Amino acid sequence: MNTRIPVTVIGATGVVGQRFTQRLAQHPEFEIRHLAASSRSAGKSYADACTWRLGSTPYAGLAHQKIVESSSTAAMAPLVFSALDAGVAGPIEEEFARAGATVFSNASAHRMDEDVPLLVPEVNPEHLDLLPVQRQRRGWSGAILCNPNCTTTVLVMALAPLHRAFGLEAFSLVSMQAVSGSGYPGVASLDILGNVLPYIAGEEEKVEEKAARLLGSFNGKSIDPAIISSSAQCHRVPVIDGHTEAVSVKLHGNPTTEEIIEVLSEWRAAPQELGLTSAPPSPLVIHNAPDRPQVVHDVTTDGGMSVHVGRIRPCSVLGTKFVLLGHNTERGAAGGSVLNAELAVARGLINS
Amino acid sequence: MNTRIPVTVIGATGVVGQRFTQRLAQHPEFEIRHLAASSRSAGKSYADACTWRLGSTPYAGLAHQKIVESSSTAAMAPLVFSALDAGVAGPIEEEFARAGATVFSNASAHRMDEDVPLLVPEVNPEHLDLLPVQRQRRGWSGAILCNPNCTTTVLVMALAPLHRAFGLEAFSLVSMQAVSGSGYPGVASLDILGNVLPYIAGEEEKVEEKAARLLGSFNGKSIDPAIISSSAQCHRVPVIDGHTEAVSVKLHGNPTTEEIIEVLSEWRAAPQELGLTSAPPSPLVIHNAPDRPQVVHDVTTDGGMSVHVGRIRPCSVLGTKFVLLGHNTERGAAGGSVLNAELAVARGLINS
Amino acid sequence: MNTRIPVTVIGATGVVGQRFTQRLAQHPEFEIRHLAASSRSAGKSYADACTWRLGSTPYAGLAHQKIVESSSTAAMAPLVFSALDAGVAGPIEEEFARAGATVFSNASAHRMDEDVPLLVPEVNPEHLDLLPVQRQRRGWSGAILCNPNCTTTVLVMALAPLHRAFGLEAFSLVSMQAVSGSGYPGVASLDILGNVLPYIAGEEEKVEEKAARLLGSFNGKSIDPAIISSSAQCHRVPVIDGHTEAVSVKLHGNPTTEEIIEVLSEWRAAPQELGLTSAPPSPLVIHNAPDRPQVVHDVTTDGGMSVHVGRIRPCSVLGTKFVLLGHNTERGAAGGSVLNAELAVARGLINS
Amino acid sequence: MNTRIPVTVIGATGVVGQRFTQRLAQHPEFEIRHLAASSRSAGKSYADACTWRLGSTPYAGLAHQKIVESSSTAAMAPLVFSALDAGVAGPIEEEFARAGATVFSNASAHRMDEDVPLLVPEVNPEHLDLLPVQRQRRGWSGAILCNPNCTTTVLVMALAPLHRAFGLEAFSLVSMQAVSGSGYPGVASLDILGNVLPYIAGEEEKVEEKAARLLGSFNGKSIDPAIISSSAQCHRVPVIDGHTEAVSVKLHGNPTTEEIIEVLSEWRAAPQELGLTSAPPSPLVIHNAPDRPQVVHDVTTDGGMSVHVGRIRPCSVLGTKFVLLGHNTERGAAGGSVLNAELAVARGLINS
Repeated sequence: MNTRIPVTVIGATGVVGQRFTQRLAQHPEFEIRHLAASSRSAGKSYADACTWRLGSTPYAGLAHQKIVESSSTAAMAPLVFSALDAGVAGPIEEEFARAGATVFSNASAHRMDEDVPLLVPEVNPEHLDLLPVQRQRRGWSGAILCNPNCTTTVLVMALAPLHRAFGLEAFSLVSMQAVSGSGYPGVASLDILGNVLPYIAGEEEKVEEKAARLLGSFNGKSIDPAIISSSAQCHRVPVIDGHTEAVSVKLHGNPTTEEIIEVLSEWRAAPQELGLTSAPPSPLVIHNAPDRPQVVHDVTTDGGMSVHVGRIRPCSVLGTKFVLLGHNTERGAAGGSVLNAELAVARGLINS
Repeated sequence: MNTRIPVTVIGATGVVGQRFTQRLAQHPEFEIRHLAASSRSAGKSYADACTWRLGSTPYAGLAHQKIVESSSTAAMAPLVFSALDAGVAGPIEEEFARAGATVFSNASAHRMDEDVPLLVPEVNPEHLDLLPVQRQRRGWSGAILCNPNCTTTVLVMALAPLHRAFGLEAFSLVSMQAVSGSGYPGVASLDILGNVLPYIAGEEEKVEEKAARLLGSFNGKSIDPAIISSSAQCHRVPVIDGHTEAVSVKLHGNPTTEEIIEVLSEWRAAPQELGLTSAPPSPLVIHNAPDRPQVVHDVTTDGGMSVHVGRIRPCSVLGTKFVLLGHNTERGAAGGSVLNAELAVARGLINS
Repeated sequence: MNTRIPVTVIGATGVVGQRFTQRLAQHPEFEIRHLAASSRSAGKSYADACTWRLGSTPYAGLAHQKIVESSSTAAMAPLVFSALDAGVAGPIEEEFARAGATVFSNASAHRMDEDVPLLVPEVNPEHLDLLPVQRQRRGWSGAILCNPNCTTTVLVMALAPLHRAFGLEAFSLVSMQAVSGSGYPGVASLDILGNVLPYIAGEEEKVEEKAARLLGSFNGKSIDPAIISSSAQCHRVPVIDGHTEAVSVKLHGNPTTEEIIEVLSEWRAAPQELGLTSAPPSPLVIHNAPDRPQVVHDVTTDGGMSVHVGRIRPCSVLGTKFVLLGHNTERGAAGGSVLNAELAVARGLINS
Repeated sequence: MNTRIPVTVIGATGVVGQRFTQRLAQHPEFEIRHLAASSRSAGKSYADACTWRLGSTPYAGLAHQKIVESSSTAAMAPLVFSALDAGVAGPIEEEFARAGATVFSNASAHRMDEDVPLLVPEVNPEHLDLLPVQRQRRGWSGAILCNPNCTTTVLVMALAPLHRAFGLEAFSLVSMQAVSGSGYPGVASLDILGNVLPYIAGEEEKVEEKAARLLGSFNGKSIDPAIISSSAQCHRVPVIDGHTEAVSVKLHGNPTTEEIIEVLSEWRAAPQELGLTSAPPSPLVIHNAPDRPQVVHDVTTDGGMSVHVGRIRPCSVLGTKFVLLGHNTERGAAGGSVLNAELAVARGLINS
């Protein structure tokens, strides 16, 4: 029998919330029970509560669904996907977890809590072992799991197999990020038309800190971050969806470009092995054409869930360099959280 | 008495040629004698021969000037500014030099000739010492001088004072370049609207090779390139004019950020000391605001002749990082060539 | 039994050719037999012959299909879709029609031939009656059918039901057209970034002339154009796909806005009645929100096959005004041709 | 002796306030006494109180000037330029006028007051006759004068000479407006990158109503609006500065295109006759090239103070059509207000 697990989207009216709704509306394992938002929206239909900002079927076909308030009394479900703003996410997510829900959050509130798995399913599925630690420590029947910020997610998708195969000593990242990463209304048009913004508040520190954590290892009660020398320089460019990242890496033993291409090409991880619904066939798509990947051609491949790697070549300074492209509001946000949930379900970690 | 030196612009109908014309039309030391272009345009008025692509006074007030052919018989002058396409520039520039003109070229044809000064006046004015070598070797009464490609020019404006003060061991550059750098029609709109192009043919090699040359030293007959480990990753973004460059540098002796800011802020060079017409008051404009420099706010400062440096801060991988912004068709093309000519005149190197 | 009709795409390597291939690769009634292009591409794989410019599955899964030459000997099929450039389309399309193929052309070569149906299936399906006239007159067993240019297609989708219901006396159109309408490389980035181009060569005349023809009636041997006073002003804006059109209309009898909304909302036409594969559920999507339709939210609805109407309101000058949005390379090009073919098949006009 | 009139800019920190400051900092007749803003900014230096958003000399050289509060006690001067937000402008402007200042306002608060001149100096200088009416009625020693919204200003610059020469029966306007018209932060980048917004709240009504008033005549105590049938359809496009407007007009007596071009070309008005500082040499720049005017080539001509007319040609529906381009934050805002002040000074209407 094919019983789908009831889920709630909290923060369903924002851009990321809409992506959650879109992904979950037709999901074979999950079934939307509640679309939840602030008390201001509660009681309205989804269509009245917000403007649909995605190109496909408006409101994912749920235009008439009544919005409920983002509280565990009004919107409980075994699985909760959180697209709340950082400012309010913390206590609301905790409330759901305390009430027994497993919360998959795209918000930053709990991302650096020591006992909260910060998860990219291909990269660090073993960090799920933090869940019992968290439950015990907090006395919750539910739990909170986070996905990292979009820039870090795209980055570690390429760093993880290299770190595993060779050992990563250092990386340098320069990002060219899409405006959708800052939500709506986000970046003002006068700040980005014909412009490059050379600064995104807090982003560089996040990338350096979280990459180390994602590549780190579980020591029985917490994560020991990987010891990697790292530098991030983050920019905003006039692109809607899709972060481009120019990366240089220093690897142990100076592998050749061919060895690196082989490792990246052949990499398959837990989501592929388990055949998770939202998993791309291969975590990385390797491009040979010298001018790829590009946002306009590549970012929507595999529903935006694969990360693209191109121009893999020697770097005179660090050893090897390449360019990455990933979908910041799919793989880097809603899609990433949904894949986290699929992994947790497959691993039997959800009491639904 | 203030006699202005007659000059010719060859390739006057293209985007860079128009910038030359605009800069020279009101120049206190130079006077446009000829606007020259291909035989297809010769005989037409400037306005009939091309579409004016700059925002200010159309055709710099020379709409009715007759175009002559880009040959030394039709268009001779003591000083010649070349905005020719790379494909045809080589022999035409040589013809003028042979006939006695000093040619300041923005074309790539002679950029890597061993006896041709590749010049950024603030950076390597001493490379003018190559001129006698070139004249003797080629038997010319005239000469050819080149400015580097735009990306390299912007970069070395910041690297030069650091190299002089501390010694530069390595640099890593990631550029976000404007479309005007590829001329007209250049990049197709379908390739750049809402996109990042992760590849510019030949650009990365040029940056690495020419930066070493520009920071190198004259050994009596040629230039010994500086020994610097270098990496360039070049991208095209939806910007009209203005290259943004994310740079990391490794310097001898690990200077502090404060020491670096002091060196960059206080740097003055030959153009400033000589008070050259097109020289900015200071070669570098240092920004303290965390989100500057930006194309829309800063690129036209000082007629596009200064280079902007912002976000100077430590880099865990190489030591120090910062972001640069420069005007690719002014400082990086026409303005750079005109400044080269002003320097050569001030140094008494032009027999006019 | 479900036998699919073999089809050929000629001009398969260009942007519109790629859209044809994408639409036909999974089509339930049609089956791609040949991808054809110029002799320069013949013999290469599809992936080697061009760069895929659409966001979805690269090469529609046909990366390895061998390109054949666009000639009836090399590429014959009962149905042929032509995405050839106007310059070469004429004789090649005739060659296929002479050889017995029914050619559905997106090229302009035969658009104004008196005996060639210029067809938008919802608007003038009765113009298919020109086919016997064409066959007899030209002595062909095959035939040529054209779709109009994109701007006209979007426009007449809204004018047709109004003309039928009330009688159209005059219309005024101001278009804001996407760059993909000019093919690749098409518009230069320097001409469109941050700009509006107030001129598209020949476009305004085409719209005025073809709208009259599409709304005209078959008189037994040719089409009598509708007598409508018309004005078109066409602009290019920095949009990839999606023409926005501001329209005012003068209708007989001064119907109210409510009457007009009712007519537009309730309109269903041949493709909807016949349930054609590519037909949108409703030819027009009526928007009530004051700020819709918008390219980023609406243009891909129904695979880009519906036309969006918004802001229907009184006009003090002509009576009624509204804004239209349509996908110029789907409904206005490849999708329109495929729908034409589906209609012709449903009407039994193809001898396959 | 050349004594300059002291002036105050209220709302000096916003985008339009910055344009005022820029225009006035070097003005031969005016001298900035106060830069005023909200109490939140008062006491700070101009540089600390806001981010400079214009490309040229930062803070117009007044980075260190102390901001005072926008009240008549703190910021009085004979002339006051108001760039306040509509929400607060009304009472503050009145306070200054009551205290004796002549206020030139770019805010909408008093635009439709019956006794407030809504002024475009070339179009309706005779509306200055409303000033005595206003002073008497309100018992003020000062006064308030407004410039219209940007879209209307650009439009009436072309309509006025046609109305005077032929009589204007009807016009239809479709605008493609720049984002700077909505201030900062204004339009969200997600709403405009690669998009057209088909709606600007209130804009169409403003254009229709104010064009009639600007073309109307003073009847001794108020303005009789011109009786013209009018329609406006307003759109936002991804352009920084520069409104493009597609216009059709119906004129009495059906003049020929040549007659119309002659009228538009030869038009000179009060600002040109009086040689006002900010007046363009000719109010209209007529373009013959079929693809002009364009934002990127033309909008900054004459400091953004001239309005460009191109593609003047017959229209089958209304008689004649053309395309306009004007700088929305110069001619359509700050520059327009400054020109109003220059006209009032030249007419001896300011008691300074």
